[in-house]
Amino acid sequence: MNELIKKGQLANEAKIALANLSSVDKNKALDRVAHALIEHQDVLLEANQLDIMHAEENGVKGTLIDRLTLTESRIHAMAEGIAKIIKLDDPIGEVLGMKKQPNGLEIGQRVVPLGVIGIIYEARPNVTVDAFALCFKTGNAVILRGGKEAIHSNMKIVEVIREALRQVDMPVDAVSLIEDTSRETATDMMKLNDYLDVLIPRGGAGLIQAVVHNSTVPVIETGVGNCHIYVDQEADLTMATDILVNAKTQRPGVCNACESLVVHEAVADAFLPEACTQLKAFQVDIVGDASSQRIVPTIGAAEEADYGTEYLDYKLSVKIVKDLDEAIKHINRYNTKHSEAIITENYTHARRFLDEVDAAAVYVNASTRFTDGFEFGFGAEIGISTQKLHARGPMGLKELTTTKYIIYGNGQIRV
Amino acid sequence: MNELIKKGQLANEAKIALANLSSVDKNKALDRVAHALIEHQDVLLEANQLDIMHAEENGVKGTLIDRLTLTESRIHAMAEGIAKIIKLDDPIGEVLGMKKQPNGLEIGQRVVPLGVIGIIYEARPNVTVDAFALCFKTGNAVILRGGKEAIHSNMKIVEVIREALRQVDMPVDAVSLIEDTSRETATDMMKLNDYLDVLIPRGGAGLIQAVVHNSTVPVIETGVGNCHIYVDQEADLTMATDILVNAKTQRPGVCNACESLVVHEAVADAFLPEACTQLKAFQVDIVGDASSQRIVPTIGAAEEADYGTEYLDYKLSVKIVKDLDEAIKHINRYNTKHSEAIITENYTHARRFLDEVDAAAVYVNASTRFTDGFEFGFGAEIGISTQKLHARGPMGLKELTTTKYIIYGNGQIRV
Repeated sequence: MNELIKKGQLANEAKIALANLSSVDKNKALDRVAHALIEHQDVLLEANQLDIMHAEENGVKGTLIDRLTLTESRIHAMAEGIAKIIKLDDPIGEVLGMKKQPNGLEIGQRVVPLGVIGIIYEARPNVTVDAFALCFKTGNAVILRGGKEAIHSNMKIVEVIREALRQVDMPVDAVSLIEDTSRETATDMMKLNDYLDVLIPRGGAGLIQAVVHNSTVPVIETGVGNCHIYVDQEADLTMATDILVNAKTQRPGVCNACESLVVHEAVADAFLPEACTQLKAFQVDIVGDASSQRIVPTIGAAEEADYGTEYLDYKLSVKIVKDLDEAIKHINRYNTKHSEAIITENYTHARRFLDEVDAAAVYVNASTRFTDGFEFGFGAEIGISTQKLHARGPMGLKELTTTKYIIYGNGQIRV
Repeated sequence: MNELIKKGQLANEAKIALANLSSVDKNKALDRVAHALIEHQDVLLEANQLDIMHAEENGVKGTLIDRLTLTESRIHAMAEGIAKIIKLDDPIGEVLGMKKQPNGLEIGQRVVPLGVIGIIYEARPNVTVDAFALCFKTGNAVILRGGKEAIHSNMKIVEVIREALRQVDMPVDAVSLIEDTSRETATDMMKLNDYLDVLIPRGGAGLIQAVVHNSTVPVIETGVGNCHIYVDQEADLTMATDILVNAKTQRPGVCNACESLVVHEAVADAFLPEACTQLKAFQVDIVGDASSQRIVPTIGAAEEADYGTEYLDYKLSVKIVKDLDEAIKHINRYNTKHSEAIITENYTHARRFLDEVDAAAVYVNASTRFTDGFEFGFGAEIGISTQKLHARGPMGLKELTTTKYIIYGNGQIRV
């Protein structure tokens, strides 16, 4: 707790200066950080080796070690990520909707940083750089609490960033890392209301639910995506197959991948056999309800729990429904409010799906895989919000800001 | 807990229909509710009498009984409040920033309701009507949990509203009241993540802090205002006195009233005696630091705790500072991020105050009393947000909405 409070205080002392930096100065500092990461790649790789060694000793599985691993090219990619953030417009300082009121007061909403952002994440050192750069560009201080497997890499990365900031006379407490990676510290961080304006978890469903259910600091819930594709009775079935195969197999480990297929019973016979054949070519494990098993005997039996599972893998659940109402009801029951798609040529069905499905992104005739900051046209993102407060969908720079009302008067009093 | 879950489920079943109502239908229903309240004023007054009788038996103090009391004219005022909300523009359904991406996807952000809003409040029956009307106009279902002192009034009001909704074929579960007013139920409501999209506390500092520190449902923190007026060394002292007296005395029981005066030492001698004389004419109790007591001997001694107290009464704390830096630091330390004002003729000081004071509304040369929805030009409000996520400052209809991305494709897959 001492470490949290100390770093919380330092971040809060830094935040006013950070809020008032010019874009030119912020971009100059980010550029220095990008170069510093490359200049210090040897020490970064060395620290990372230590993490990898410990992970291997502790029997951490291969995919996790892959996420943990830094290479020269990955360090360059981190630096290039910063370069992209430098190019984005700085949202801070814009005054929205300034108007003169009848009594002469001029009232406008100025875009300002949130203040101090806490980020709890897993063993991915690239998040350390990425989260810092997005927060810094928007004038926020950030307190990072990464997974224990990446602690040596993270400590070295944050040291390099802070030293780079020092060189260009920027407040070094713009970024700090919680070095105590115990579970208790993470829990304490969720109660740090006096020092954190917002807490953003980045990682798997377990981490996110732990933060949502324990944090009294305002949270932005991100990432878990139990995404559906609904093939309507009036779908173009070739388009439906292409979109399904893409959304399931193009990159199955990400949150906007399709996890569940919902099919109207009128087209199930015509659609499922070919779709399953194409999915099987990618070794997709398919489980479904009894009706789907009757049409495609190789489909395994789905349990109730399958419909609520984000597999993040080559696996798909299938549900056959009698109409659009049942499809919408099923999706609203099991989805995580991330991304949902209908494939249809019917105008009214498309509109009803857009109106009635409750999710951050609702698609007609396109793959759910497009839900991200770059595809939506606003660049790097800190996560995909699946909650309704503050931000919904991909969170770019704008979502790391708030507003303050500024009011110019000349002696007005209230009568 | 059973009552909460049952009403939570019903509200969630109603929310999709509510989200897709036309403005015409919503306004028609609100108009029916406004008339129904007046038609049933006798039963409302009768139920209210029961609450007042119990409150008097339990020795509840006069100001609270006043807030609890309904009269014919107050019921008419509630109906007129609904009429004003009917006249406001409905924000639901607008699509923001729809653009065609390079791959042909058309992506826009549609304004949609939050879903189900929980409101925890004290013994003010007018909040029951007001909160329902604002939530209904924005297509949200609302679950109300009012203070136990007003339970009979609230039950009858909600019964009248639901009956009016039934008459015009609207989903009656647009509004429900938690009838179990135990503390445990309030605490359980703060954990109702599966059924509530947001929880808004309305009331005093104790209630709001209890909700902020216990709720895992996303909260919008409202209302507590420890507001300062800083009289700069280059202030027009007559303007400063007028603004201070107005902000302190025009309505001392509200959140945007001034609670603390900060004065530059260079003008303290010239400013304080006259300002204190004018405040004393309103029986304002003034406490201050040693320097202020030397200038005006009738000023009492301020304790450290005074600077952190929202008096909501004819009382004011005074602090003399040596410069603008100290003023800003003092304000950022003790304020509740509500409304803060500087009185100055100095351009750079005004700009620095706007830049560096962290609050929902920052004023130059005007009374803090202007922070409310009507004065800011957007009508009725559900509260003044003092947090940074989602909404900051007066929360009108727009702040009761979120967005969903809607995406029109023609077969796009991700490559």
